[in-house]
Amino acid sequence: MSFEGEQYPGVQAPPGETEGFRLNHTMLRVKDPEAALGFYTRVFGMRVLRRLDFEAMQFSLYFLARPEAGETVPEETGERTVWTFSQRGVLELTHNWGTESQEGRIYHDGNAQPQGFGHICFSVPDLEAAEAWFDANQVEFVKRSDQGKMKDVVFVKDVDGYWIEVVQADRLSALGD
Amino acid sequence: MSFEGEQYPGVQAPPGETEGFRLNHTMLRVKDPEAALGFYTRVFGMRVLRRLDFEAMQFSLYFLARPEAGETVPEETGERTVWTFSQRGVLELTHNWGTESQEGRIYHDGNAQPQGFGHICFSVPDLEAAEAWFDANQVEFVKRSDQGKMKDVVFVKDVDGYWIEVVQADRLSALGD
Repeated sequence: MSFEGEQYPGVQAPPGETEGFRLNHTMLRVKDPEAALGFYTRVFGMRVLRRLDFEAMQFSLYFLARPEAGETVPEETGERTVWTFSQRGVLELTHNWGTESQEGRIYHDGNAQPQGFGHICFSVPDLEAAEAWFDANQVEFVKRSDQGKMKDVVFVKDVDGYWIEVVQADRLSALGD
Repeated sequence: MSFEGEQYPGVQAPPGETEGFRLNHTMLRVKDPEAALGFYTRVFGMRVLRRLDFEAMQFSLYFLARPEAGETVPEETGERTVWTFSQRGVLELTHNWGTESQEGRIYHDGNAQPQGFGHICFSVPDLEAAEAWFDANQVEFVKRSDQGKMKDVVFVKDVDGYWIEVVQADRLSALGD
């Protein structure tokens, strides 16, 4: 029998009406797209699938993902837009035009008050290698893997100050025990 | 030649050090896990892959996903934890014990000031059917598909007030043109 999900108060079996629903992306506002794109493409190896510009509303959206080996991203832009909105694990960065000229960080990370959103998380094959890579790129750490109560869990900040958790999946089998 | 990503100032080619990096999950704090699990399992058809309890720090984490047809989720909990942290498109809900007894919504959605995080997004096969499903479940709308400047894009709120965008991928081929 296949796994049907852990059961807790409130949990319901997936209704048929939700067939084909897919968690596609998470949107974060960024101050300076050049800095944010530099960070996510270099430090986390993401690619820009699509930029969408909305002149009337004065903003641009950048959709980033890290296509897996064997996945073919369509070249044609319309097809690529449809493909982008059909995937899982996409990051959308919103740039409100003109914010890049402001001083310092301008967006709220959700971990300071008022709280809400906490972080995004990347899974990596080798946590120490990833930490060394972050150091080589002068990435700001919130917590290293040997610090705090949760060992084997790293938190860094992106250029806007959002928290990024970084884990190595096969080291977490006993987490929460 | 395969698609290498759109090129903008700041964009770099994915370095070899990022091989195997994968955007695994997004974390949102929720006030009442029974209400949040009821919402995400019923309205969006997600399943609880793992709950992790941290007694010393007085919080629990719930990891939810909507496994695709053909994907086999491991039954054994340790293997299932590793599997959970190896996927894309996972939603992590954090429950700080005791918040469920507070009145009203207690978390910040990131769209009111101070801004930061914007939304998560689900892709669905049929946008009108999804809207009817949300109505049948008394889901609160921010914007319906026929409202506002961006047609074919729906925004609803989850039980904590976070925004969820809902799109039908094959209707968005001309978006941004």
